[in-house]
Amino acid sequence: MLTVLSVKDAKERILSAVTAQTHCTTVPLPDATERVLARSVAAQHDLPTFPRSTMDGYAVRAKDTFGASESMPALFDVAGEVMMGQAPPAAVAAGQALRIATGGMLPEGSDAVVMVEHTEDLGGATLAVNRAVAPGENTIARGEDIKAGETILPAGHILRPQDIGALAAMGQVMIDVAQKPRVAILSTGDELVMPDMEPKEGQIRDINSYLLSAWAQRCGAEPSRLGIIPDTAEELLNALQNTGDYDCVILSGGSSAGTRDHTASCIDQLGKPGVLFHGVSMRPGKPLIFGVVDGKPYFGLSGNPTSAMVGFLLFVRPLLLQMAGAVERNPVITARAERNLSSASGREDYIRAALYEQEGQLWARPILGQANLISTVVRGDALLRIPQNSEGIEAGDTVEVMLI
Amino acid sequence: MLTVLSVKDAKERILSAVTAQTHCTTVPLPDATERVLARSVAAQHDLPTFPRSTMDGYAVRAKDTFGASESMPALFDVAGEVMMGQAPPAAVAAGQALRIATGGMLPEGSDAVVMVEHTEDLGGATLAVNRAVAPGENTIARGEDIKAGETILPAGHILRPQDIGALAAMGQVMIDVAQKPRVAILSTGDELVMPDMEPKEGQIRDINSYLLSAWAQRCGAEPSRLGIIPDTAEELLNALQNTGDYDCVILSGGSSAGTRDHTASCIDQLGKPGVLFHGVSMRPGKPLIFGVVDGKPYFGLSGNPTSAMVGFLLFVRPLLLQMAGAVERNPVITARAERNLSSASGREDYIRAALYEQEGQLWARPILGQANLISTVVRGDALLRIPQNSEGIEAGDTVEVMLI
Repeated sequence: MLTVLSVKDAKERILSAVTAQTHCTTVPLPDATERVLARSVAAQHDLPTFPRSTMDGYAVRAKDTFGASESMPALFDVAGEVMMGQAPPAAVAAGQALRIATGGMLPEGSDAVVMVEHTEDLGGATLAVNRAVAPGENTIARGEDIKAGETILPAGHILRPQDIGALAAMGQVMIDVAQKPRVAILSTGDELVMPDMEPKEGQIRDINSYLLSAWAQRCGAEPSRLGIIPDTAEELLNALQNTGDYDCVILSGGSSAGTRDHTASCIDQLGKPGVLFHGVSMRPGKPLIFGVVDGKPYFGLSGNPTSAMVGFLLFVRPLLLQMAGAVERNPVITARAERNLSSASGREDYIRAALYEQEGQLWARPILGQANLISTVVRGDALLRIPQNSEGIEAGDTVEVMLI
Repeated sequence: MLTVLSVKDAKERILSAVTAQTHCTTVPLPDATERVLARSVAAQHDLPTFPRSTMDGYAVRAKDTFGASESMPALFDVAGEVMMGQAPPAAVAAGQALRIATGGMLPEGSDAVVMVEHTEDLGGATLAVNRAVAPGENTIARGEDIKAGETILPAGHILRPQDIGALAAMGQVMIDVAQKPRVAILSTGDELVMPDMEPKEGQIRDINSYLLSAWAQRCGAEPSRLGIIPDTAEELLNALQNTGDYDCVILSGGSSAGTRDHTASCIDQLGKPGVLFHGVSMRPGKPLIFGVVDGKPYFGLSGNPTSAMVGFLLFVRPLLLQMAGAVERNPVITARAERNLSSASGREDYIRAALYEQEGQLWARPILGQANLISTVVRGDALLRIPQNSEGIEAGDTVEVMLI
């Protein structure tokens, strides 16, 4: 029973079949990069907590500078200096100035900073200001960066270096992040041997366990390679029954019809609801199996590494992110196709392509070779998408690309 | 002595001032993802090592099928079956077929595979083939994916999941990668306190140590946070003299003129040649200091986190990659600007922007707020570049963006 879904429908069915069961763990701030924020973080105080100077100069009352010019400078009494990291020694009264450095705390009474370049020290604590400043000029107001109570980062955000910076600013040194989904990765096939083995005639090395665990890691999951499973229903069922510790199971292999049937029937034997669909109208990666048993997702990807990789990127990746509660901010990137590409209508194609820049534009050069060659994804930087309702694209067309 | 360089000149001077001193280390294949390949890897054998079927069906001599059709099928003797992972039991002679599954080893004598869908089992080991196949059809030739001796991955390549797969295919289980550059990160400033401290009036928490070490990590370097250094030449010099174990030193802070002078003079006191330039015509991040002492690079970045980050991305990042011998494949990504943006000619501007998609195109919405607000890079996904010779861009213009 081969139910072939569109890519869009398949993705929707996968994402709606599995509930996020985010377990939270607390990590020190420096370890939180690339992790998924488990709860939204609100600012506990204004940032900055005090008005600051953004220039080296003098804190003044702006109105005392109005009308000042080179030929008619305004004169000020320098009443002291704001030391970095300290409260100002005094407030600023009319006609007074306090020396201040970039980042210094603006004194009471002052509302602007005159850049040192626009002043002249006349000696005897007298300062000539030869340019007027507007209120607020060369300062940051209290809370201008972040206001107390404001959500800095929402739950589900994947923490980037600058987010780590913002959390440091707020004194958040222990961060609640989602636990990494634990992913079991199994390769099936009597032809497979471990990469450190010398394959005999008819044998090939297991690529997918390594390829898929590297991708799982890149998606923020914690992969475990459970090895190579011989192509019998018994061995496969036995292996699947030993994946209780994992949140998601990825099988690959079984490219042949018989083995695909093993995979599907073993998932069904594990429990309910079992296999939800089998086959997606895409190339490469059509023979994709997806099932759910007791809320846990099972993927049966193609044995062919490129197909397995495309299946992973289109379906496993979004699910792993959803399982961690992650909300992705992944902008769609487009490039212009270097040449015509044909495609069957009703099928989504993912063409391996090398990207290059020409006159400020991004171009995609399709890489020739069958979809089952791993060299095409090694030489490529991107997958070029030909939508389902298209019969191909013409040279120069702008197309969506997925960076790999 | 403020020598202000263009972004391009500054980058060139930095990259030409430091020689890559790549030390190599060997790691197990699964740990090699994101690492920089230290030597190029050539294929030790063809991939696949034998011709394979890409379909479930029958291995035949293509010419025996010529002329076959639904109404006039070609008849074959089924002489056996190719088992997965084994050499074929026999060669294929004229009029013979061997059953074969996807990935099976093509028998001697055969040069094509007829899909099972185009055959009919007539019983008694007789097979009707109702469609002709061309030589090579539904097969992969030996070496079609990768040829023995071919360079699979060049030295300096940053290993992606698919590269890990290709290395597994070749039986490379221990990989020579570049050692991660060790980066010392120091924050200077009397106003700084550690993030777990409650700042007093005039104090702020150290953001940059955390922001910059997260970025360094993302560039494949090994950062060490050496803490907060008070704003005296003596303490700074002392701290710098204790960075002997590191390959690169990043200072940040000292936004004020006096402190910037400390940084520059301390680097000069360490040895020759000392500070190479001071200031880059860009915004944010203009007051950038770069020096080299005994071949080791020293950066003095702004104290302001956003400026420090832009300085890191434009200058430190390419140098760290070069130090690891890494060759980046970073396609230029462009987006259309949502609104007019002005810029001073002679200066490169990096505007924080949020990216979004509209009708298949990527747009960049500039984020308002001074360059010194960390919230602008937290809310942004990208830096939008306004080139040096431009006085601004107009709404709808296509501009280069750097994803952050």
